[in-house]
Amino acid sequence: MIQKIVLIGAGNLATQLAKALRRNGLEVVQVYSRTEASAKALAQLLECPYTTSLDELEPCDLCMVSVKDDALETVLRQIQLETIVVHTAGSIPMEPLAGYFKNFGVFYPLQTFSKQREVDFSNIPICLEASSAEVFADLQALGEKLSSLVQPVNSEARKVLHLAAVFTCNFVNHCYQIGDSMLEEKGLSFDLLKPLIQETAQKIMDIKPIDAQTGPAVRMDETIIKKHLDLLADQAERKRIYQLVSESIYKTQITK
Amino acid sequence: MIQKIVLIGAGNLATQLAKALRRNGLEVVQVYSRTEASAKALAQLLECPYTTSLDELEPCDLCMVSVKDDALETVLRQIQLETIVVHTAGSIPMEPLAGYFKNFGVFYPLQTFSKQREVDFSNIPICLEASSAEVFADLQALGEKLSSLVQPVNSEARKVLHLAAVFTCNFVNHCYQIGDSMLEEKGLSFDLLKPLIQETAQKIMDIKPIDAQTGPAVRMDETIIKKHLDLLADQAERKRIYQLVSESIYKTQITK
Repeated sequence: MIQKIVLIGAGNLATQLAKALRRNGLEVVQVYSRTEASAKALAQLLECPYTTSLDELEPCDLCMVSVKDDALETVLRQIQLETIVVHTAGSIPMEPLAGYFKNFGVFYPLQTFSKQREVDFSNIPICLEASSAEVFADLQALGEKLSSLVQPVNSEARKVLHLAAVFTCNFVNHCYQIGDSMLEEKGLSFDLLKPLIQETAQKIMDIKPIDAQTGPAVRMDETIIKKHLDLLADQAERKRIYQLVSESIYKTQITK
Repeated sequence: MIQKIVLIGAGNLATQLAKALRRNGLEVVQVYSRTEASAKALAQLLECPYTTSLDELEPCDLCMVSVKDDALETVLRQIQLETIVVHTAGSIPMEPLAGYFKNFGVFYPLQTFSKQREVDFSNIPICLEASSAEVFADLQALGEKLSSLVQPVNSEARKVLHLAAVFTCNFVNHCYQIGDSMLEEKGLSFDLLKPLIQETAQKIMDIKPIDAQTGPAVRMDETIIKKHLDLLADQAERKRIYQLVSESIYKTQITK
């Protein structure tokens, strides 16, 4: 059974994951970050020791590596623990871990994390992959302490899931940002758009997105679209996004 | 005081607006649609008479015109009522009404409407513009029966608001649709993305979208971005959207 956890990384995901582990009775026995300030800040939050040296990791039941994708291999190479090692990245297969460890896996919570915002882990899908049935069972038991949505997702599927998450979270948020900045430029409050944003997200809980679509692009309403493009005349990038996404909506609707 | 309303149009917005009016004690005395089936369907729902002829409109306190933008002028030209006439379109200025009526305005509920989905009007922003203070007061009293978010928005501001709504609703929903279809192609359930979608929408209720942004484009993480573009290799349109929006996110973040 996993009880003692060493956490490698102190970014948004590591921070929120560590807090959730602690809230659910797990022990984060040590935090590592290359940057002392980050390691120290998270260690203080968790009231646990920290290190900036991968030679000094404490014994534990699980080592969770939550660092930037580019740093992963360098970090893995230096971990000397005889324990289960997992990474938490949606975008990376499980395979790199096989070169360094006997027991390993992936523990990927599918959510958007910011340091300053508390998240309720209980309904976050936790996507698991493991080197053996035994490791899977251990990770599953751990995951189920945090969330009711724990499930096996292999590397191939996780890759697609991560890309889909970029569209449905990062790109969605960018659309919010464009809306916010347009309104700000006119002295209008972003609050005006909030009920629309909530309903748009709520609607697809019951209706498939393709059937929930509304607006001028559905029928390529050229009168409205022309007005919108005129409004965007001096904003080349937004204009290109508008054209490209409108065309894509239209094509999706006529072929459905 | 506005009590008796004639409704021109039987689309998504007209349908939901009519139902909300009726729930709040207003009388929809007649429904018009060019298409008899549409007029009849909505009239049955509202238990009121319908017509397919603009020569046969009933006397009323308010005529609400909720038709496609392209059809608006043609419809306005045929309305012979001596009453307040409003349109409900975000994308159209108030000015075209001035050519036909003495008392007129705009009654624009800022929301996404589908025929089959009930909406709670009470927190929908209703954006008002009117030909006089008297008409404004009448529309305001009506709006406040439906919603607690009634406010003056002039044609110039409404135009921007409508464009921002396209980004934050239609384009957002298209991102949902892309995610849904990617997962479907891999046999994965769209349910996996729903907690992420909800949190992404919820996050910006408190945090400005620019500060809520996460993901590979924020720091132009080329390793991840390259993997995503490889995954999209045979989907030219999604690939272009990915590139364009990622660049736009990056530029937004580095200039903030």
